[in-house]
Amino acid sequence: ICLLLLHPSTGNALVESLQSCPATNPSMLNVHLVPHTHDDVGWLKTVDQYYYGDRNNIQHAGVQYILDSVIDQLQKDPARRFIYVETAFFYRWWKQQNQSTQRIVTQLVNEGRLEFINGGWCMSDEATTHYSAVIDQMTLGLRFLNDTFGECGRPRVAWHIDPFGHAREHASIFAQMGYDGFFFGRLDYQDKARRMKTKEMEMLWRASESLTPPLADLFTGVLPNGYNPPEGFCWDQSCDDAPIRDDPDLEDYNVDEIVQKFLNAGFYKANHIIMTMGSDFQYENANLWYKNMDKLIKYVNALQAKGSKVNVLYSTPSCYLQELNLANLTWPLKTDDFFPYADDAHDFWTGYFTSRPALKLYERLSNSRLQTCNQLEVLGGPKSKSGPFGEGDSDTMSKAMGVAQHHDAVSGTEKQHVAYDYARRLATGWAHCEVLVRNSLAILSGSEAPRVFCENLNISVCPLTESSHKFSMNVYNPLGRTVSWPVRLPVNGSVYSVTDANGRAVDSQVGNVFISLKCTCYIYDMKSSCLLPLLSVRWFHCLSPHRNINNKSVLLYVFKFLKVTFDETTGLLSSLTNLETNQTIQLTQNFYWYNASAGNNKESPQTSGAYIFRPNSSDPFVINKTAETQIVTVSSTVQEVTQWFSPWVSQVVRLYEGHRELELEWTVGPVPVADGLGKEVITRLDTDIKSSDYFYTDSNGREVLERRKDYRPTWELKQTEPVAGNYYPINSRAYIKDDKHQLTVVTDRSQGASSLYNGSLEIMLHRRLLYDDYRGVGEPLSEPGDFSDGLVARGRLLLTFTPPDTAADVHRPLAQGMVLQPLLSFQDGTPSANTKLEFSGLQTDLPPAVHLLTLSQWDEDTVLIRLEHQYQAKESKTHSQPVTVNLQKLFSTLDVLGASEMSLGANQWKEDMDRLQWNAGNNYPSPWEVTLNPMEIRTFLLRVRQL
Amino acid sequence: ICLLLLHPSTGNALVESLQSCPATNPSMLNVHLVPHTHDDVGWLKTVDQYYYGDRNNIQHAGVQYILDSVIDQLQKDPARRFIYVETAFFYRWWKQQNQSTQRIVTQLVNEGRLEFINGGWCMSDEATTHYSAVIDQMTLGLRFLNDTFGECGRPRVAWHIDPFGHAREHASIFAQMGYDGFFFGRLDYQDKARRMKTKEMEMLWRASESLTPPLADLFTGVLPNGYNPPEGFCWDQSCDDAPIRDDPDLEDYNVDEIVQKFLNAGFYKANHIIMTMGSDFQYENANLWYKNMDKLIKYVNALQAKGSKVNVLYSTPSCYLQELNLANLTWPLKTDDFFPYADDAHDFWTGYFTSRPALKLYERLSNSRLQTCNQLEVLGGPKSKSGPFGEGDSDTMSKAMGVAQHHDAVSGTEKQHVAYDYARRLATGWAHCEVLVRNSLAILSGSEAPRVFCENLNISVCPLTESSHKFSMNVYNPLGRTVSWPVRLPVNGSVYSVTDANGRAVDSQVGNVFISLKCTCYIYDMKSSCLLPLLSVRWFHCLSPHRNINNKSVLLYVFKFLKVTFDETTGLLSSLTNLETNQTIQLTQNFYWYNASAGNNKESPQTSGAYIFRPNSSDPFVINKTAETQIVTVSSTVQEVTQWFSPWVSQVVRLYEGHRELELEWTVGPVPVADGLGKEVITRLDTDIKSSDYFYTDSNGREVLERRKDYRPTWELKQTEPVAGNYYPINSRAYIKDDKHQLTVVTDRSQGASSLYNGSLEIMLHRRLLYDDYRGVGEPLSEPGDFSDGLVARGRLLLTFTPPDTAADVHRPLAQGMVLQPLLSFQDGTPSANTKLEFSGLQTDLPPAVHLLTLSQWDEDTVLIRLEHQYQAKESKTHSQPVTVNLQKLFSTLDVLGASEMSLGANQWKEDMDRLQWNAGNNYPSPWEVTLNPMEIRTFLLRVRQL
Repeated sequence: ICLLLLHPSTGNALVESLQSCPATNPSMLNVHLVPHTHDDVGWLKTVDQYYYGDRNNIQHAGVQYILDSVIDQLQKDPARRFIYVETAFFYRWWKQQNQSTQRIVTQLVNEGRLEFINGGWCMSDEATTHYSAVIDQMTLGLRFLNDTFGECGRPRVAWHIDPFGHAREHASIFAQMGYDGFFFGRLDYQDKARRMKTKEMEMLWRASESLTPPLADLFTGVLPNGYNPPEGFCWDQSCDDAPIRDDPDLEDYNVDEIVQKFLNAGFYKANHIIMTMGSDFQYENANLWYKNMDKLIKYVNALQAKGSKVNVLYSTPSCYLQELNLANLTWPLKTDDFFPYADDAHDFWTGYFTSRPALKLYERLSNSRLQTCNQLEVLGGPKSKSGPFGEGDSDTMSKAMGVAQHHDAVSGTEKQHVAYDYARRLATGWAHCEVLVRNSLAILSGSEAPRVFCENLNISVCPLTESSHKFSMNVYNPLGRTVSWPVRLPVNGSVYSVTDANGRAVDSQVGNVFISLKCTCYIYDMKSSCLLPLLSVRWFHCLSPHRNINNKSVLLYVFKFLKVTFDETTGLLSSLTNLETNQTIQLTQNFYWYNASAGNNKESPQTSGAYIFRPNSSDPFVINKTAETQIVTVSSTVQEVTQWFSPWVSQVVRLYEGHRELELEWTVGPVPVADGLGKEVITRLDTDIKSSDYFYTDSNGREVLERRKDYRPTWELKQTEPVAGNYYPINSRAYIKDDKHQLTVVTDRSQGASSLYNGSLEIMLHRRLLYDDYRGVGEPLSEPGDFSDGLVARGRLLLTFTPPDTAADVHRPLAQGMVLQPLLSFQDGTPSANTKLEFSGLQTDLPPAVHLLTLSQWDEDTVLIRLEHQYQAKESKTHSQPVTVNLQKLFSTLDVLGASEMSLGANQWKEDMDRLQWNAGNNYPSPWEVTLNPMEIRTFLLRVRQL
Repeated sequence: ICLLLLHPSTGNALVESLQSCPATNPSMLNVHLVPHTHDDVGWLKTVDQYYYGDRNNIQHAGVQYILDSVIDQLQKDPARRFIYVETAFFYRWWKQQNQSTQRIVTQLVNEGRLEFINGGWCMSDEATTHYSAVIDQMTLGLRFLNDTFGECGRPRVAWHIDPFGHAREHASIFAQMGYDGFFFGRLDYQDKARRMKTKEMEMLWRASESLTPPLADLFTGVLPNGYNPPEGFCWDQSCDDAPIRDDPDLEDYNVDEIVQKFLNAGFYKANHIIMTMGSDFQYENANLWYKNMDKLIKYVNALQAKGSKVNVLYSTPSCYLQELNLANLTWPLKTDDFFPYADDAHDFWTGYFTSRPALKLYERLSNSRLQTCNQLEVLGGPKSKSGPFGEGDSDTMSKAMGVAQHHDAVSGTEKQHVAYDYARRLATGWAHCEVLVRNSLAILSGSEAPRVFCENLNISVCPLTESSHKFSMNVYNPLGRTVSWPVRLPVNGSVYSVTDANGRAVDSQVGNVFISLKCTCYIYDMKSSCLLPLLSVRWFHCLSPHRNINNKSVLLYVFKFLKVTFDETTGLLSSLTNLETNQTIQLTQNFYWYNASAGNNKESPQTSGAYIFRPNSSDPFVINKTAETQIVTVSSTVQEVTQWFSPWVSQVVRLYEGHRELELEWTVGPVPVADGLGKEVITRLDTDIKSSDYFYTDSNGREVLERRKDYRPTWELKQTEPVAGNYYPINSRAYIKDDKHQLTVVTDRSQGASSLYNGSLEIMLHRRLLYDDYRGVGEPLSEPGDFSDGLVARGRLLLTFTPPDTAADVHRPLAQGMVLQPLLSFQDGTPSANTKLEFSGLQTDLPPAVHLLTLSQWDEDTVLIRLEHQYQAKESKTHSQPVTVNLQKLFSTLDVLGASEMSLGANQWKEDMDRLQWNAGNNYPSPWEVTLNPMEIRTFLLRVRQL
């Protein structure tokens, strides 16, 4: 039984897992058979289809049956073990079980026979996810396990057996969540070959350059067979390997042959080896696996009596890890990451960094909305879930976001119908949140007047603002500090007077093609300011992309911080000047497309597809050497130029008064493929920055890693794909720099990026392909869009140009502002007299280095909060310093009665993680003063009372 | 619990099954869901591969897991039921279970939750099997169930859901075995459509024209969906139908839709309907089925509260039958059979009547050997199984024969590698029998001298007789009466002197190309007579088929009973004269081939294949209009002519002294297909008999049915295949007749036959095809033979020509003699002095009408015997009469202490079958005098003691 026994001398909690681990034989080679199933939270089928086993014509997979079957089989023999990983599925199954089954399962968990591994809502993608959403989805899964099974349900091992490359930030997160180790299956084939040779398949990953070791240190193991069983030993119903036929009367008795084959299977290290016995959606009929493994164990171990030194046992990753830990060996250190992933010379999995750009954006916006929803649930109190607008909740959105983090969800590598399902879930989640938000805003404002959210502002549609002559806009800012956020609304008048909550006029702009109004929003500000009566000019969506434009005369663009020039001849950007530091670079930006390989290449039949990026040639085709340009607006608020490159590529370049960034709003699509050529569209920034082969990309939106063309830090690369082999995922930013200049691009979603030339930075924006790439999805990536002629994607790149040593001061807050965007809502007419027009949930702005990562209701009287130091060590003179926050004085409307610090996953008290020498109980009060070091995230459970 | 409760007033044993049947609702439509699996005892995989789940790349199927899974799932809910059919698989599984599982299974059987249906070793083919082997395989399976589970394990219902057409003799056998009813799935599509319309899907089948009703009456039901579930309700792991998704929180909740779909599924009769919930090798993961059926029952029956009149329940065929019986309705009567089977206009399943002719012969010979083995086990006593030649047994052969009766075994519709496996099993079975036979013959003869069986006499190979100058031959005759049996041996001398056990010279013939010796063998005779010293002429196998032969002058052929003429010009047979009755017919016989359809026909893409016979044209191609002939031998023993039609078709025509039949030994193959044309080879007998459209074929080697071209007795046929649609299976004989003449052909194996012209009878001998016929086997039927150039088949047709009213007197014993052939064994040199040279197990010949169908050891001191009246009612003036045998005075070496009559399947006492009005106990002694009526088989268990 998984009792909370502590080691008598050290009080070490590890003893408990030793208790439940199977006995090994120190004088033999111990083969740890790990029965497992890998259950994608959506891929070829939707998550519901996978759960129920629907649409088995697409893929045979039904998770409900897997869990039914495994629980049955575990009961048949106490030696049998199983691990389960994806809590999204387990949670649903658990809800449908009767008490008797629940008791049996609890007993199996307590005895270590069923062990949860990883335990997040899903097994997240590592290339295209943002750390905020990853931490949330892990927390969602871990909390369910904690609430349901307590300590014995807490996963000890992180398990990312399928994601297509591994991010350092994920390792850092796992370490901070208290995982004892991490196993994965996929890494570059050259790297794997080398590690096999040098016995470096297991290592210590130092996953942060900022956090003090061993805070972000994580034992990491590469599994020997990906996540599959050794060849010939797959006994699932989906496999064709020979079963063990042990009836000696039979002609086809094959025990001796199978045992010999097993003993011949290569083991690569030490006297412990882990063998993953399972694969995708396996164990739907667990009897097949266990019956044959029982026989394998019996017959292999029977040979010990004849001198064999092989000992086979049922085990789990944590039991295997335990044995490695006891072995007390020295492990190689790893400090970079595992991107990009290639499984062969022309098979770089770097296409999915950009695949499905609209889904990637929608997922990112949904994160912003979920944070807003969570915050307003805390601030609005219990009535926000059941109030004047009905029943609302944040759980639906949490789960939809949890599912969307899956490595075939936001990654863009699912089938089209599944991508639609993910989007539908997010929309449904937001519909639930909308009710909650309406209730909460009604509570906070004292007004139950109807409220509208305009979902389609990105395409300039908002029926209320387009029809009403008098309306008010509420802005909720989920960031922990004041931001300046330009708002553009479609209206139907020519003159609006805009005022703020205090009746002061707001700087707004209504032009013949453009309107901008700027609201300075404070944390938890709710302004029904910005009243816009009676106007008559239409919004710029009236501007037709096909309209003939004559002049290419926009030459200069300037506000307080930045000067931008365009080339008179080409219409392209030509230079950027930082007016604060008085530095200038040459900058040309244009759009290109790589021709996607159709696989008819003589080196390899590999095509470009949802996963894989493989250009036919390293030279992209320019879409247009020149752009037709038009000045759209030159006002005191914004200056704006539109560039037309082709009927399917255009861009609006914007500079806002008071902003340090240049906004490039690109529109790409429908990408034409009638010529039979798949296209992978990039934008490239070419500068005179002397970046040489170096460039920089973030990891899951947190720390930044240095990249170097045709180079890997820990092994000698043989570069076989000069473009695709140099692509890296960016989640929030990329930059190039030299001693003096740094050009940083902040993105609105995850994308692929590279620097293939000195001074150049390219970002892949959109992909439309004609072939599947043979990694299982079975569809070419060719999103139909609303009109079935190809998806139109629109997005923003924010450019900042600074000296390198102050770059972070600009791009860090800029990127967080992109992630957590203000939520706009609209009410018709003027607010009633007793409406509270302004509200702030925080007593004051957080210090510049501190990011409010999480604020969400936990239990009835507790609130989960995560505070993050958002600067890396050494990247900012000003901000890369420890910073202190007072938890008790944080909120304006909550009385904080106590605080307990937790692991990052919020499933363990921080001091239990620290492996103290003694057991000091569970719930020590945290001191009110909390200090954050660079890149540190601290997680607290606050006991609160509404004021 | 399946207690042996008897009805208080009637003492009727049916009460027991009522006890265990689920409650139904008389005011509603009761839908009996019957969970079942259909487990082929070999087809695409061998029986071992199916059992273990090996070679799942060919077909996913593993019976061990099916039984594991079903037993697990039955335990989860007492309402759940399952039926199991194939004892060959169940037996193997049972042996591997521990006591605890065996106890659980016994309990499930006792409670009626697991019910055995059919219960034979396999589900036999009906077109190509011989009743002797069918009764044996049923007995093998039923006995295991009886021994293991007693009364509650006795199947009540016969269940032939897959065989491709249904033989009347099978129905007769089932009735005599005490089955209460019979269900099947396949019948002619026109017949089915009609029965659906007229509600004649269920009927009473009167399955014998000889046996007194209701002896051979059998309630027979055609299942509504073949043996599959209704469309949309297949929840096996092998199916893709939508599972029931009943989580009301879900987007994809589909309970209402599924329930509605179920209620809309057409039910066709009464207020009870049976639904087969399962299919081929389903229930490997029974949870999928039961979980969804549980929900279906729950949600459909929940509607009763809202007025629905549908009641769904788990049930079994016997419980369904019980309800039909209680309904006390009148059922239509059926007296013919269900051949041929067509599932569409050009899709007649009449090819398999002939497919794999060599396997069909080997199976038939193996039956003869098994009967010999069984008999010698009884006669030799216990030492026959463990004697001077080691350990022998008949069980292995019994099981191999049991498996060979399967509807994809002797039918010839299995994959090639599986066909080899069936043959290998039979060979292994015979190897075990050989030891037993050696032991038994040693005991009976008092000589342990080595003994050789010459397996290859059919191709004139026997190393001992070819090399030894002095050898003895033992002949064991398994028939219950004296037969004359010509023996031909390959020898290496020119002059042999042959003597019998008494030293009397035996009539033997050694010519330049031929040797014949004739031993008259008595029942259980063992003669070491026939000594053949010093000769010098080689056997006729030296005669090359390619040798140039000049004369075609054989005109006349005559012995005591028959005169045969050949046409001088063509070399073909020209007439047949019965010298006893002095009647003559014109008779031409030749060989033809139908061109197998390649499916490129405009009416239908159907090809000819292992199952289906579809000629491209109704006119077959003649192989040669003339034959090259040679008189091989004209002697006092035999007259013999060889005819050469082509390099791959030849025939030897033989007439034996003292015999009434003409033997046609045909050799066909390798059938050439290099011309791209698949060929279906027939021989056709054209006579001046005025048979009109009528002809006659036997049913499983017992009773004979009248056939009529382009006609079905019970429904109006729309004939769409003028050749294939008129083919019928023959197992032992076919004939045509008019008022005066009857030409009967007795065959050595099962074949397809027809009469397409007045006076004509054709028999298909061999098939070699180029295409699969889309019924699952996935291979063209093109047997490679020993040299991979195509199989050579050789066989015999025995022609008798008589007046119709005495025909049976000749063809009945002739056919039984073909089925049970003497076993020859050889010893080198002369037998030692004290060798007992003659032995007969029977005290005297059985009466001519009585056939000894079974004589086999049952328990230590009991013997199973079946006596059969081998004449139909009215077919013989002399023999179609009751006949009496004395059981006590039957055997020469056994003291028969008692006899108890049993059901044909030997799993029930005869008086229990009779449904007496009272319970008279289980084991009443049978009177010694036993009377048999025409076509009656009586089965006894004898208590015996070796004398």
